[in-house]
Amino acid sequence: MTTPAGFYETHAELLDQAVRATTVRDYWSAFPESPSKSVYGEQAAPEGERAFRALLGGPFPIEVPGAEGTVSTERSPWGLDLGVSYPKADPLALVAAARAATPAWRAVGPQGRAGVAAEIIKRINARSFELAHAVQHTTGQAFVMAFQAGGPHAQDRALEAVAYALAATTRTPRDAEWAKPQRGGDPLRLAKTSTVVGRGVSLVVGCTTFPTWNSYPGLFASLVTGNPVIVKPHPGAVLPLAITVQICREVLAEAGQSPDLVTLAVEEPGDGIAATLATHPDVRIVDFTGSSEFGNWLEANARQAVVYTEKAGLNTVVVDSTDDYKGLLRNLSFSLSLYSGQMCTTPQNILVPQSGIETDAGHRSVDEFGADLAAALDKLLGDPARAAGTLGAIVNDGVLARVTEADGAASVIRPTAAVTDETNPGATIRTPVVVRLDAADDKAYTREWFGPVSFVIATESTEHSLRVLVETVRAHGALTALVHSRNPEVLSAAREAALDAGVHLAENLTGGVFVNQTAAFSDLHGSGANPAATASLSDDHFVTGRFFTLQSRHHV
Amino acid sequence: MTTPAGFYETHAELLDQAVRATTVRDYWSAFPESPSKSVYGEQAAPEGERAFRALLGGPFPIEVPGAEGTVSTERSPWGLDLGVSYPKADPLALVAAARAATPAWRAVGPQGRAGVAAEIIKRINARSFELAHAVQHTTGQAFVMAFQAGGPHAQDRALEAVAYALAATTRTPRDAEWAKPQRGGDPLRLAKTSTVVGRGVSLVVGCTTFPTWNSYPGLFASLVTGNPVIVKPHPGAVLPLAITVQICREVLAEAGQSPDLVTLAVEEPGDGIAATLATHPDVRIVDFTGSSEFGNWLEANARQAVVYTEKAGLNTVVVDSTDDYKGLLRNLSFSLSLYSGQMCTTPQNILVPQSGIETDAGHRSVDEFGADLAAALDKLLGDPARAAGTLGAIVNDGVLARVTEADGAASVIRPTAAVTDETNPGATIRTPVVVRLDAADDKAYTREWFGPVSFVIATESTEHSLRVLVETVRAHGALTALVHSRNPEVLSAAREAALDAGVHLAENLTGGVFVNQTAAFSDLHGSGANPAATASLSDDHFVTGRFFTLQSRHHV
Repeated sequence: MTTPAGFYETHAELLDQAVRATTVRDYWSAFPESPSKSVYGEQAAPEGERAFRALLGGPFPIEVPGAEGTVSTERSPWGLDLGVSYPKADPLALVAAARAATPAWRAVGPQGRAGVAAEIIKRINARSFELAHAVQHTTGQAFVMAFQAGGPHAQDRALEAVAYALAATTRTPRDAEWAKPQRGGDPLRLAKTSTVVGRGVSLVVGCTTFPTWNSYPGLFASLVTGNPVIVKPHPGAVLPLAITVQICREVLAEAGQSPDLVTLAVEEPGDGIAATLATHPDVRIVDFTGSSEFGNWLEANARQAVVYTEKAGLNTVVVDSTDDYKGLLRNLSFSLSLYSGQMCTTPQNILVPQSGIETDAGHRSVDEFGADLAAALDKLLGDPARAAGTLGAIVNDGVLARVTEADGAASVIRPTAAVTDETNPGATIRTPVVVRLDAADDKAYTREWFGPVSFVIATESTEHSLRVLVETVRAHGALTALVHSRNPEVLSAAREAALDAGVHLAENLTGGVFVNQTAAFSDLHGSGANPAATASLSDDHFVTGRFFTLQSRHHV
Repeated sequence: MTTPAGFYETHAELLDQAVRATTVRDYWSAFPESPSKSVYGEQAAPEGERAFRALLGGPFPIEVPGAEGTVSTERSPWGLDLGVSYPKADPLALVAAARAATPAWRAVGPQGRAGVAAEIIKRINARSFELAHAVQHTTGQAFVMAFQAGGPHAQDRALEAVAYALAATTRTPRDAEWAKPQRGGDPLRLAKTSTVVGRGVSLVVGCTTFPTWNSYPGLFASLVTGNPVIVKPHPGAVLPLAITVQICREVLAEAGQSPDLVTLAVEEPGDGIAATLATHPDVRIVDFTGSSEFGNWLEANARQAVVYTEKAGLNTVVVDSTDDYKGLLRNLSFSLSLYSGQMCTTPQNILVPQSGIETDAGHRSVDEFGADLAAALDKLLGDPARAAGTLGAIVNDGVLARVTEADGAASVIRPTAAVTDETNPGATIRTPVVVRLDAADDKAYTREWFGPVSFVIATESTEHSLRVLVETVRAHGALTALVHSRNPEVLSAAREAALDAGVHLAENLTGGVFVNQTAAFSDLHGSGANPAATASLSDDHFVTGRFFTLQSRHHV
């Protein structure tokens, strides 16, 4: 057994660095994103794959409170037969076990809890290859992306949440001496103690496309601030979170804590266990990533809890002009293609003034821009093997149906096409469809078409584009916005528009940074300032609602 | 004109000290609490009184957007005829003016906003005597208390909120350089800018007993985080907040900002302007102090806003044993008497084991303890002039009715009595009533009897007392808890009980510190962990929900 304090000692330097990184926000990463042998060792890749294969077709080794039967709900978008089954828990037993585990966890204090969390994340990192396969075969991401986004990038986001939680729970000193001067007498003296107390049972509801990346911040923020966590994966992407919960329980038990501080809540699709748990009086924190429909339902109905949601939005690109037209097209076509646009950050609405745009390659009309973008996509995705590595597989039938619907539009600029991946013949792979619209077609472009669907939308002017950006994002949300312009006044207006809309802005991305990607410890993901999300990953606001500070005072 | 940056420069040292004080939480105060000439100068007291008198019987000099008629709703609990009238504003005009003023305020940035806020607070401090009279003659507080709690203590709480807001809005650096190493190439480089954006229009709903102390934290937290604020005073205590808003508008205008960043919303009782404003789609922050009924309504209905409430509760004392029985009685009787128990922090439920308590003056049965407490109250309040200085006046008929109701109970230990203050013959002054109950009488003691009403409640044991503390506070809330014991195990159990109940604890107060008083920069007021309040005054949680951080990034 290692005590929580022992784990803190082991990881104190890492935690210090992480806390410092949150205040500097330059480039900092604790977990290497390259799945290369030189970083993770010769055996990491084959061992990870073996560990993953060993899990297939059998019961996943994990205990849950109040187990009653099993469920097996996953299918790989790449066509692999998974057949993993998980024990199903009684929701009331999960909540009761979580509550019972809480007092000892409260007594550990912030540093010890951060130490345990850091140990968990380190062990998750050591299983990055196994997790990469699990993420690949539940989300449909290509392997390298599954490794990076599902592994080290998610681990960085986890550590970032730990750092914010540790900083926020230690900013008020545990002990303080208060001495108030008195006229003509000794000062009044009090000793004061501050204790961090978690808000209550925390529920993390995972999504199907980024089961680890989107769940880790809430999971670790809640845990470090003193709360037990029930992890409810999406039925389509259980395995990555089951492995995560398994590691959490292992470390917690080693630290002398109840493993039921982190439990797994699986369900058959339609069981509605998330709604049952989210409205339980003892569940006081809910983290959710997924549809606006259920996210809004949670916000309206989980009234006893603080609710953090990330939902749908209309990620928007304003194209005004550029000095690097090729770079613009290359960058944008990659953003549209990466993981088949199944990222909550993928651009959907590309606003172009009807008079066209000025570029280093001359004037381009809206139609020419659309054709150039289509050509850039064709070029990027011309080779099937490379295309599969960028596109990944379509995660579910809902996405496929939207692609098909968009492809039937009268004004398709670039139709979708099926791609055959020889390594994974069972995979469902589709290239992006691009549709030409006008600003008046807001019925079509003011709903989210999650997946490889985007619109080139002609507006009256760049000024009008910025107005559309503000209006649509204020009303429907967005996680990303991108502007291309060589005019400083337009860039300045775009910055103001993004502030008005409440969305983070990227400007003139023409190289190796893409609008869909955010880096932990530097980029905020989501803002809370528009309907797409109620908070950022991660900042003080994301952690301060998860705990209370209670004081006691007495004379000295 | 002084720019916001200029005000920041002027007050940078004060702000630095204040921010540092929030991290140390030992004794620190920026504004002297003594109304003495040596501190505030020879002329401050008479000038303040003259300024107050000059306001009586006429229209208060303040502009409001969309003025339509006037209201005059205040009466002094001390019997003075106030007759001040205020311009009534159209709620929609208030919101529109607030929104129009916002963009320029956003552009000022955190430091400039904190500078403006510090200047406002300094000018409020300079008018402390005038404000003290205004507070006295609206709340019924005695003059010295009105000066301290309504003046310097409220100003300290204001500055504390400014400090938390400034720290929270500057923790993420405005500018960051991001350079991500690339294998075999130059690093990817981005310049990143973070901008603080307020959540939206902020509504502060004041209460009748502490119009400044309870309103300032929300007002200044919202203002410094970039939001315009509409101040809605209680119809019974308008003047202290009207003076405050007047000062805010004066300084804002001098700083080149729209004075409509802070506006006054008065009403006739029953107009319901607070509900109208709180549910307006553009009102995104609500701070409220007052009844549980309206507080709960706001939490349930102001769904578009983040809502901070402070409501009713059952402040509880657990008496187990003491080494200083006289000190206990003196301290407790003062706590019950100060401002006639019309503090949200005054003890109500005093739990005593039925077997009695051990003290340095020997064993005391429950009945003996009750009699001793009654005698201590008699002694404290024996002299009418001194009694009036401690008790103040009864603020309204609701309090009077409760005192009368409690006084009619069969088991009164100490009946209430009217006190005549020769200086203010029109004042309504009552001494505290104490009623003897048993633990089974929870119907009586699980509702708040706001005012000079308390209960000595016999429990089975101290262990039972702690159980009652946890159960009643979890269910009904509390802002304060106090334990008296010379047994370290009981103190330790009381600390755990207070953590379970979610209430701040004071232990063995027998001297010059009282459970009803909290000191800014050291004591948290409210916790959020029980139903009496949704947040603490002040901490990170109290400010981080009031703003968003938005980023923009571009290649360098």
